[in-house]
Amino acid sequence: MLILGLDPGSLHTGFGLLEKHGSALRAVDLGRFSCPRGLALPNRLAFLCDCLSELLARHPPDLAVLEEPFYGLNVRSLIVLAQARGALLALLAGRGIEIREYSPAEVKSAVTGNGRADKGQVARMVRLLVRLDAFEGAGRPLTSDATDALALALCCAQRLRLDRLADLPRR
Amino acid sequence: MLILGLDPGSLHTGFGLLEKHGSALRAVDLGRFSCPRGLALPNRLAFLCDCLSELLARHPPDLAVLEEPFYGLNVRSLIVLAQARGALLALLAGRGIEIREYSPAEVKSAVTGNGRADKGQVARMVRLLVRLDAFEGAGRPLTSDATDALALALCCAQRLRLDRLADLPRR
Repeated sequence: MLILGLDPGSLHTGFGLLEKHGSALRAVDLGRFSCPRGLALPNRLAFLCDCLSELLARHPPDLAVLEEPFYGLNVRSLIVLAQARGALLALLAGRGIEIREYSPAEVKSAVTGNGRADKGQVARMVRLLVRLDAFEGAGRPLTSDATDALALALCCAQRLRLDRLADLPRR
Repeated sequence: MLILGLDPGSLHTGFGLLEKHGSALRAVDLGRFSCPRGLALPNRLAFLCDCLSELLARHPPDLAVLEEPFYGLNVRSLIVLAQARGALLALLAGRGIEIREYSPAEVKSAVTGNGRADKGQVARMVRLLVRLDAFEGAGRPLTSDATDALALALCCAQRLRLDRLADLPRR
């Protein structure tokens, strides 16, 4: 099963692709889509959709995972972020890809055991849970957009495993 | 020149297509896209994009016009609306369609002469500015989503005319 985590932003959108084989997890790809500077918002959104479309063609995921909208931002940032989120959701749903959403606290808790962990702790735990040397060695610095996106995919993988265990008949 | 006004919502999105020939204006089509009940938000956004895509194929506009995001809403409604807006903007920009945005006050002022006019006044003035009997006669009740969308297109047509007059050499 291939799980795509997405951390949307109007300038940088992180992505992380996680392969789940039973309890074995492997990072297939991760990075971020970065919009060229100076584009107007509608063109940034279209650029983002083109990048996602290309990624979906290369690695068709079984599930896509996003963070629930986060209300702590100022209204202007919230609107920009929600527009990026809407563009990505429409594209994913249009392709028939199942979408899951988790709160920031659920993701942090799943990955670090602490719902109030900071970005650094999340990134360190992501590195311990899946090997990322292949990506770091390729001269692509791993930004927090990318590790946050992979954390979303890891949270989803953990939930799927727990759901499956809960469905097993009790002995 | 064909101008498409769009009034996005996650359940109903109004549209109004206005043809501008010099100073002559004609409503080509108007109505609203209504999502089937019970769909999750990502599927509503995908449905909306499908409807817009179909409309663009039938009537390729030269310009698309939306209202600027309106901050007076509660945060939850604002996020839903911004996501619908983002999905539509990404689609329009991806097709290379030029996008204009006006504030609610600019639209009201252009159509009624009063930046604080209510929805009823806007709808009445839209009916006086362009003939809508053909649409009303077709058994399609004209909702305020549709007249609001056409008001956006009318505001844009007025601006284009004023811009053109300002560019004429003075005698």
